Amino acid sequence: MPKITIGVMGPGASATEADLCHAYELGKLIAQEQWAILSGGLNLGVMAAVNEGAKSAGGFTIGILPGADRRGMSENIDLAIVTGMGSARNNINVLSSDVVIACGMSAGTASEVALALRAGKKVILLNETGDGNDFWQKLGAGDVAIASSPEQAISLTKAFLSHQFG
Amino acid sequence: MPKITIGVMGPGASATEADLCHAYELGKLIAQEQWAILSGGLNLGVMAAVNEGAKSAGGFTIGILPGADRRGMSENIDLAIVTGMGSARNNINVLSSDVVIACGMSAGTASEVALALRAGKKVILLNETGDGNDFWQKLGAGDVAIASSPEQAISLTKAFLSHQFG
Amino acid sequence: MPKITIGVMGPGASATEADLCHAYELGKLIAQEQWAILSGGLNLGVMAAVNEGAKSAGGFTIGILPGADRRGMSENIDLAIVTGMGSARNNINVLSSDVVIACGMSAGTASEVALALRAGKKVILLNETGDGNDFWQKLGAGDVAIASSPEQAISLTKAFLSHQFG
Amino acid sequence: MPKITIGVMGPGASATEADLCHAYELGKLIAQEQWAILSGGLNLGVMAAVNEGAKSAGGFTIGILPGADRRGMSENIDLAIVTGMGSARNNINVLSSDVVIACGMSAGTASEVALALRAGKKVILLNETGDGNDFWQKLGAGDVAIASSPEQAISLTKAFLSHQFG
Repeated sequence: MPKITIGVMGPGASATEADLCHAYELGKLIAQEQWAILSGGLNLGVMAAVNEGAKSAGGFTIGILPGADRRGMSENIDLAIVTGMGSARNNINVLSSDVVIACGMSAGTASEVALALRAGKKVILLNETGDGNDFWQKLGAGDVAIASSPEQAISLTKAFLSHQFG
Repeated sequence: MPKITIGVMGPGASATEADLCHAYELGKLIAQEQWAILSGGLNLGVMAAVNEGAKSAGGFTIGILPGADRRGMSENIDLAIVTGMGSARNNINVLSSDVVIACGMSAGTASEVALALRAGKKVILLNETGDGNDFWQKLGAGDVAIASSPEQAISLTKAFLSHQFG
Repeated sequence: MPKITIGVMGPGASATEADLCHAYELGKLIAQEQWAILSGGLNLGVMAAVNEGAKSAGGFTIGILPGADRRGMSENIDLAIVTGMGSARNNINVLSSDVVIACGMSAGTASEVALALRAGKKVILLNETGDGNDFWQKLGAGDVAIASSPEQAISLTKAFLSHQFG
Repeated sequence: MPKITIGVMGPGASATEADLCHAYELGKLIAQEQWAILSGGLNLGVMAAVNEGAKSAGGFTIGILPGADRRGMSENIDLAIVTGMGSARNNINVLSSDVVIACGMSAGTASEVALALRAGKKVILLNETGDGNDFWQKLGAGDVAIASSPEQAISLTKAFLSHQFG
């Protein structure tokens, strides 16, 4: 049986310091739950931070890469999926995750939140500035929850998982 | 040389009456400009309405279908591209459009707005309820404009095109 | 209603002189039948030649581009679909074609023949050196036909179309 | 660092008894080398057999699923990637593999061999009936090797890997 897989999405080059700290912490906490972490896999922004945090706690990390080879990959990826399809791979990110956590906000992250809702997935927004929280909650109805800390994101994830699997 | 191609995105089954009227009108106005219309191609919601409007004015319509065959296609499609890749085809929709107009809002539409901004495309929001306008304008900076009518959406499209091609 | 669309696939940089002549001729003949021509869209090898032939006879040409923008596109493309997904777009090429003609052979062309057969499409091989003809005919059973000239490829296409639509 | 990942491709419903035996054996042998096994992930034909063999020897199995959810997945998959893009996912299969082994032959398998060669990957054909061996070897030049047993496929894989990694 596949492990529970939590997708962590967030800004690349435009990540804020808060996004990066949250992502590192999320990586650690998810690893401690024995869940796999799925991300866009690049050595950049939230992707880099979440995988570094995960590996600091012995987690298992999956990177769904946009390019046609492994260039630019985070060194903390255990399993690399090479898609060669650019941002269209964002749909694979969310389809392959049991729950999606958006840590920070950017155009790419917004596409992942939207595609996740389109696919009926549960989404947790952990977003210092709160940009778009109202918009996404209205759009996603009960499928979107707002977290104010990595710890709360984990609690909300557990609640969503227990609905799905429990 | 390819014609100028305007992507019109919007809700399917959840489209409001205002969305449908706007989409029909947009289709007519885009056709009158001799631009091609690109949509998700299904016989549903904004996709159905914009293509019907376009054909009422002799326009040329392109449908980028999510399924692996033409089932569910609007009868007003002149050219069908069959992708077989579900919502991942939303990225093709925006990459293939010179300007993207979002008519109404839904999770699928939000993914297209986000993917368009990710790809550096210009986006016009024509959205009766205004949901997310502030969020998208902040996220997209100068790449997002707000229209309050189909006519204004056309004027804004012309302004964006003259920047790109003029 | 969409026009009948014939996919013409073939080698890029490795195309032989025979492949290029056949492709140019195929483009002309398909245009004369009033069918649309769908190809990979690049300004290279069989893609360039078939679109040049098609435009010499007033045809309509569709290019399904592998890159994330129009760079490298043949100047004889009427409608450009920008996929940004590299060789994975080969599946879109065949799903969007009513019949597929392979003009010459290469790894990319072989992937299109195989994906076409996987999708239940009819394939015509026009292939000076005959490489793989036996293999493909055995693999594709009644779905593969062998042509020895562009004119014969058109006759075989008509036969396949009359089965599908007639 | 990601583990070495060997893609094993082969027929689904049309697999022969020889294909299934070879696939089971391949799965066992690859697992014994501590390499990960990547396949199309379905509970069908070569995909089912290779994953069963792998798990019998404690291997790690990755399934790149064509559908939009996990329906039809082999129960012996450790990590499921859900693509929702049908046969276009075949390109991801080969881009994500260090070496590709084709066990048996079908249209889908042929597309994977061709896409692998297109991407510059090394391919090993293990194919009782030998269908297409000459065609693929000529097309792929030094990138294609022929194995007559699962054991030989492993030896050839080692030779290819030592070229790639050192």
